[in-house]
Amino acid sequence: MMEQREDTRALTERIETLAADGSSAELRAVLADLRAEDVADQLEHLHGEARPVVFAALPPETAAEVLMGVDEEVRAQLLTSLEEDAVVSLLRLLEPADVADVIGALPEERAAMVLRRLPVPEAAEVRVLLEYPTDSAGGVMSTHFVAVRDHHTIREAVEHIRRREQDLGDFYYVYVWDAQHRLVGVTSLKDLLLARPEQRIGEIMDHEVVSVPAGADQEEAANVALRYQLFALPVVDDAGVLVGQLMLDDLADIAEEEASEDMYRIVGLPEDESVFSPLRFSVRKRLPWLFVNLVTALFAFGVVSSFEGTIARFALLAALMPIVAGMGGNAGMQTLTIVVRGLALGEVDVRNARRALFKELALGVINGALIGVVVAGVAVLLSANPWVGAIIGAALFLNMVAAGVAGATVPLLLRAFRVDPALASGVIVTTVTDCAGFFFFLGLATLMLRHLG
Amino acid sequence: MMEQREDTRALTERIETLAADGSSAELRAVLADLRAEDVADQLEHLHGEARPVVFAALPPETAAEVLMGVDEEVRAQLLTSLEEDAVVSLLRLLEPADVADVIGALPEERAAMVLRRLPVPEAAEVRVLLEYPTDSAGGVMSTHFVAVRDHHTIREAVEHIRRREQDLGDFYYVYVWDAQHRLVGVTSLKDLLLARPEQRIGEIMDHEVVSVPAGADQEEAANVALRYQLFALPVVDDAGVLVGQLMLDDLADIAEEEASEDMYRIVGLPEDESVFSPLRFSVRKRLPWLFVNLVTALFAFGVVSSFEGTIARFALLAALMPIVAGMGGNAGMQTLTIVVRGLALGEVDVRNARRALFKELALGVINGALIGVVVAGVAVLLSANPWVGAIIGAALFLNMVAAGVAGATVPLLLRAFRVDPALASGVIVTTVTDCAGFFFFLGLATLMLRHLG
Repeated sequence: MMEQREDTRALTERIETLAADGSSAELRAVLADLRAEDVADQLEHLHGEARPVVFAALPPETAAEVLMGVDEEVRAQLLTSLEEDAVVSLLRLLEPADVADVIGALPEERAAMVLRRLPVPEAAEVRVLLEYPTDSAGGVMSTHFVAVRDHHTIREAVEHIRRREQDLGDFYYVYVWDAQHRLVGVTSLKDLLLARPEQRIGEIMDHEVVSVPAGADQEEAANVALRYQLFALPVVDDAGVLVGQLMLDDLADIAEEEASEDMYRIVGLPEDESVFSPLRFSVRKRLPWLFVNLVTALFAFGVVSSFEGTIARFALLAALMPIVAGMGGNAGMQTLTIVVRGLALGEVDVRNARRALFKELALGVINGALIGVVVAGVAVLLSANPWVGAIIGAALFLNMVAAGVAGATVPLLLRAFRVDPALASGVIVTTVTDCAGFFFFLGLATLMLRHLG
Repeated sequence: MMEQREDTRALTERIETLAADGSSAELRAVLADLRAEDVADQLEHLHGEARPVVFAALPPETAAEVLMGVDEEVRAQLLTSLEEDAVVSLLRLLEPADVADVIGALPEERAAMVLRRLPVPEAAEVRVLLEYPTDSAGGVMSTHFVAVRDHHTIREAVEHIRRREQDLGDFYYVYVWDAQHRLVGVTSLKDLLLARPEQRIGEIMDHEVVSVPAGADQEEAANVALRYQLFALPVVDDAGVLVGQLMLDDLADIAEEEASEDMYRIVGLPEDESVFSPLRFSVRKRLPWLFVNLVTALFAFGVVSSFEGTIARFALLAALMPIVAGMGGNAGMQTLTIVVRGLALGEVDVRNARRALFKELALGVINGALIGVVVAGVAVLLSANPWVGAIIGAALFLNMVAAGVAGATVPLLLRAFRVDPALASGVIVTTVTDCAGFFFFLGLATLMLRHLG
């Protein structure tokens, strides 16, 4: 595996050199040996200037495939480097769902211009897709699928597939719809292959077909497909009409994306940022969040500064207080992470939210008691004063309990208000554990001040 | 969607009541209306005592499917509630990969006992699977696949599939192997369906088949399959012999699992914990990590306590210092999260690690400068002393730069030493930003002390 990595690296350097030297014949020869997916990988790892050069050296079919294979930023860069004519010719090679993806990411004016230049039926289909929210089943579905009527024979179905083979990639399910195109059943290539040619679809089809509405959240759709272990998930509109399908590779992407998104949101990153997002983009996206954090940091400042008198008399408290806040913050982030993932994966819902909260509360009590005792011991050693130990031990215990409650309550409340449970939750939880930690510790210290001097 | 949720909830309560009342006939009737996947979902949401009762009411085939559909803790609970005879009969209904999963999770002694009672050929296959690490391609693959020789006709291949239909679930690829069972090509159900029955497999097969070695990490395997948009990924041993395949639904699970795992590791959660893990398990798993965090918190204590004299003379510093540390911690976690995900998704590797580091450094400089100026202004307002503003602004700038460097360097270094880049990285990064933040702020304040009083 490592050797392969080194080869890939050498190849990247070779491609960059060829692109810089303008050796386009040789560049084309090197690229011709690669799968489209590997060209996409190379493009993502090339220096920015080399990308449009390499992309221009690709034959149209490969270019279209590569365009859909690279990540969104590289795609945006490539599209910016192309003339409108070139964009239109590329889009003509793509299926509507991909065209909608590309157009949805273009600046509004350019999008409208490009859309006007596509063939009318295709443009109409793309407009429908663009109407669904980008993170809904309708927004990510493919509009290419195979559907037949139940009175068709297996032989007719196979003929139908053969005629459409050009626009179909790999697929497994053959859907069955009625005269109004409403989804009524499903069968599979395996069933078609094993049935007799003269049998009717209605005899072999499965009437129980799992589908999702086009407006469903993509994460919910992915959970449904993964739960039922489906290769693809049909998407229906409000009238039950089959309008598309989610392919399992899209679903896997979604599952991964949503998990990343949870991580990102907890720490305040925009979901569409990645390591090599343009610097300007990263600054613009992360700054507002850091300012939010600054405002919450002022709460902690407010708590500590109200105990300035105590600290002035006993400065060791200032050195000990980050321990209380930090331990609470860490425990709170653990609880938060596990509850956010539990909600996303459907393990936690209204049926057991209270049980989740109680468990994290109990965990805070137990871990808080154990760690409180240890910290109390350490503090006595550091300060040679048993009162300091008692105060920090008690504060730590209380803050760990607060961490468990806040870490579980914040995402559950956000969900109850129909807000993404991950959103901003990291800052809220650490603000609670900072403020509570400082308050418990310095508050107890102030009460016991005569024992500290 | 919400309505459905309410129905599910009512159903959970009804099942719990029936289980508690011992109304087993009625319970069986309710369960018979549900798909196995939905029974699994219900089991996960039932009270612990109700689970074995409900599970016992299922017919054997459904019980086996449900056993594989529930999460690992519920599975462990159900297995514990069963007699050895019952476990063995259930395992006889499962395919080897699933049997290996179940046996791998049993206590060692019980595992050996159960394994001895399985049919010899199946037990041998399970033993092979148990030898691969649980997070390798070999450890998660299914050993059920369809493979034919290239001289076979399409008709013969279809007959082969028909004979084996009983043990095959849904599948899409038909692999082609040579006399030594080495993987040499691949074709699909679609190709079989559209080919003429008398054509030979060799004529329609694709020679370029993407596969992974059995020892490959499951995350790498999932990335390969998602990159090439495959429904399944064949797994080969060291000699190139086809030994199994990873199904795409497993791959989607893996992708999701790995993303969750990254989140978990950053905050110090064990990868196998979930919201409803037993309390004892959670305490045992989270405590050691909290103790690690305690040790690192002592570094921060050390830094602050070495400036006790400064704080004693100017206690406002104690209230301001959490702002410097907290902002750095947040920025560091942002960088860390994005670099860890970039490494996991293959966006960052040796080819561009330096570029990633420089970008995060630049981001630290820009965000640090902008936020530093704002915080300096706020601090002047709070303290009515321009020196306080200058000190905190400069310290914040330096700490944001340190956060960018630490957030990027820690995971990159861990990866270079072949350790999971997410592991423990959250604690390391926040320790750096705490210590650096306190040091820069209190250090500068000590140098400027005569201007503060």
